[in-house]
Amino acid sequence: MSKTGSSGTDERRVYGVLAPVLTPFHADLSPDAGRLARFCRWLLAHGCSALAPFGTTSEANSLSVDEREKLLDAIREDGVPAERLLVGTGACSLTDAVRLTAQAVRHGCAGVLMLPPFYYKAVSEDGFFRFFAEVIERVGDARLKIYLYHFPPVAHVGFSRKLVERLLRAYPRTVAGMKDSSGDFANTKTMLDAFAQDGFDVFVGSERFLLAGMRGGGAGCISATANVNAGAIDRLYRAWRSPEAEALQAEVDAVRGAVEKVPLIPGLKAIVAHHAADPGWLNLRPPLVDLPPEQRAALLADVAALKLALPDLRG
Amino acid sequence: MSKTGSSGTDERRVYGVLAPVLTPFHADLSPDAGRLARFCRWLLAHGCSALAPFGTTSEANSLSVDEREKLLDAIREDGVPAERLLVGTGACSLTDAVRLTAQAVRHGCAGVLMLPPFYYKAVSEDGFFRFFAEVIERVGDARLKIYLYHFPPVAHVGFSRKLVERLLRAYPRTVAGMKDSSGDFANTKTMLDAFAQDGFDVFVGSERFLLAGMRGGGAGCISATANVNAGAIDRLYRAWRSPEAEALQAEVDAVRGAVEKVPLIPGLKAIVAHHAADPGWLNLRPPLVDLPPEQRAALLADVAALKLALPDLRG
Repeated sequence: MSKTGSSGTDERRVYGVLAPVLTPFHADLSPDAGRLARFCRWLLAHGCSALAPFGTTSEANSLSVDEREKLLDAIREDGVPAERLLVGTGACSLTDAVRLTAQAVRHGCAGVLMLPPFYYKAVSEDGFFRFFAEVIERVGDARLKIYLYHFPPVAHVGFSRKLVERLLRAYPRTVAGMKDSSGDFANTKTMLDAFAQDGFDVFVGSERFLLAGMRGGGAGCISATANVNAGAIDRLYRAWRSPEAEALQAEVDAVRGAVEKVPLIPGLKAIVAHHAADPGWLNLRPPLVDLPPEQRAALLADVAALKLALPDLRG
Repeated sequence: MSKTGSSGTDERRVYGVLAPVLTPFHADLSPDAGRLARFCRWLLAHGCSALAPFGTTSEANSLSVDEREKLLDAIREDGVPAERLLVGTGACSLTDAVRLTAQAVRHGCAGVLMLPPFYYKAVSEDGFFRFFAEVIERVGDARLKIYLYHFPPVAHVGFSRKLVERLLRAYPRTVAGMKDSSGDFANTKTMLDAFAQDGFDVFVGSERFLLAGMRGGGAGCISATANVNAGAIDRLYRAWRSPEAEALQAEVDAVRGAVEKVPLIPGLKAIVAHHAADPGWLNLRPPLVDLPPEQRAALLADVAALKLALPDLRG
């Protein structure tokens, strides 16, 4: 499973900059599949090497399993390529996780990005191992590639080094990598040092750590702000060995800093709504709510000052 | 909405001791509706005034929405009375919460016990308010009674006094009470003092606080250990004004103490499996796992020493 094996980098694996794609909603809060497919295509044409729909930024856990299934079917039918999708399929319920993961495999998606079951908190390593083992056995398909989504600040549960090791030992052809959204690069470094050489692809969860991640043997980043700044983040990804890398890192950090001044998901939707001249993008499902007008205005002013390269989305 | 209005206590409301009913699984981890219905009837005949299926102890968040719907239909068909059910219907997804809540109302259930949407953590009071407002408006049925399930140690989000006040002001006929599983009686006292006099029914989330709760104007308790000790907890509930109350409280505390030495849900399933002479009760859905044999043996020995009044469940 090494990505530096006889054939070099595994052609079917995804690398680089991935956006956990924002989910647009109609006014009645039903998901808007057509607008989502257009946005996916736009992201793939403007810096994203692949996409991670149904992540935290996608409000995926605010959707039902039926809604998630229908949306994936719809964007695939609308031409979004399966080989460029890491689909979020983690769920608290084993049966939900199996159903969503099996669907992604049926579509031929590059992989799935799985949160651990996140309701119970005092869960043993054995319990998490058994959850993933059940999903893998029940899906029962050699094409399945699982990326572990480590996000303790929100999920309050996550993947220890020992758990990753145990999963890799049991399912070396299935467990393909990780998104580390711990916000703690020391944790990312631990995972890189322990597993990257064996082809375990570690993506940083914020472009703030992209340069450090690449220097440590990482595979790229899967970051919320790639929804609005994928072009610049991709330039950094491609140039990480160059003398300009530090300057490019500072550039993407400045955009991240501006967006992080406000709640991230409503902030990103406000930026897309503005650049797409489409207020429908402001819709969020509760419990998330849109920004107060003055906060939105301040964010858009900050972003304008940074000359964010987000072209017209209307096309 | 006062429970001490012209007609005295509202006949349609539930009070007393409720069990968040354990969910039995077949060996393939599918829910066992027949065994669940039998256990519900047994609990209602042995100390539970009503039941709270699909709670934390029920592993409800480890089930899909389809599985939850089918189980509720099945136990209703099997004769479990709707007027004695507070059905757990909280969910991260608005559409799931609406669907489950509408089903409970269609069945004529006494009410629903709702967790807040628990994936996102840094959510504003306004976001939670909008979530519940959407559920109430979309279900759109005057029969709906919502009990708020406050459980910050596991959900990591919850109901502030201000949020309860706002919900009660907007939906006084729908927002009926709370289960406080904060483990902090000061919080329970705050809710009791602020809202109980207006008919807001506060249930403590552990029988450890039952006497204190009743003295403060509470409505009873909804407690995991009622799955195995409802008779004794009910005696305390009925005798809380009597001179024996303190001794009865100490008695139920001793049982709770024994069970709390091990992970609660596997511990309760081990006790039921033993008393029902039915090892099928040991099945848990991952991420929960059963107790190691030595821990199970120690628990059963502790419980035997306490002469837990759990008669034969096989009938």
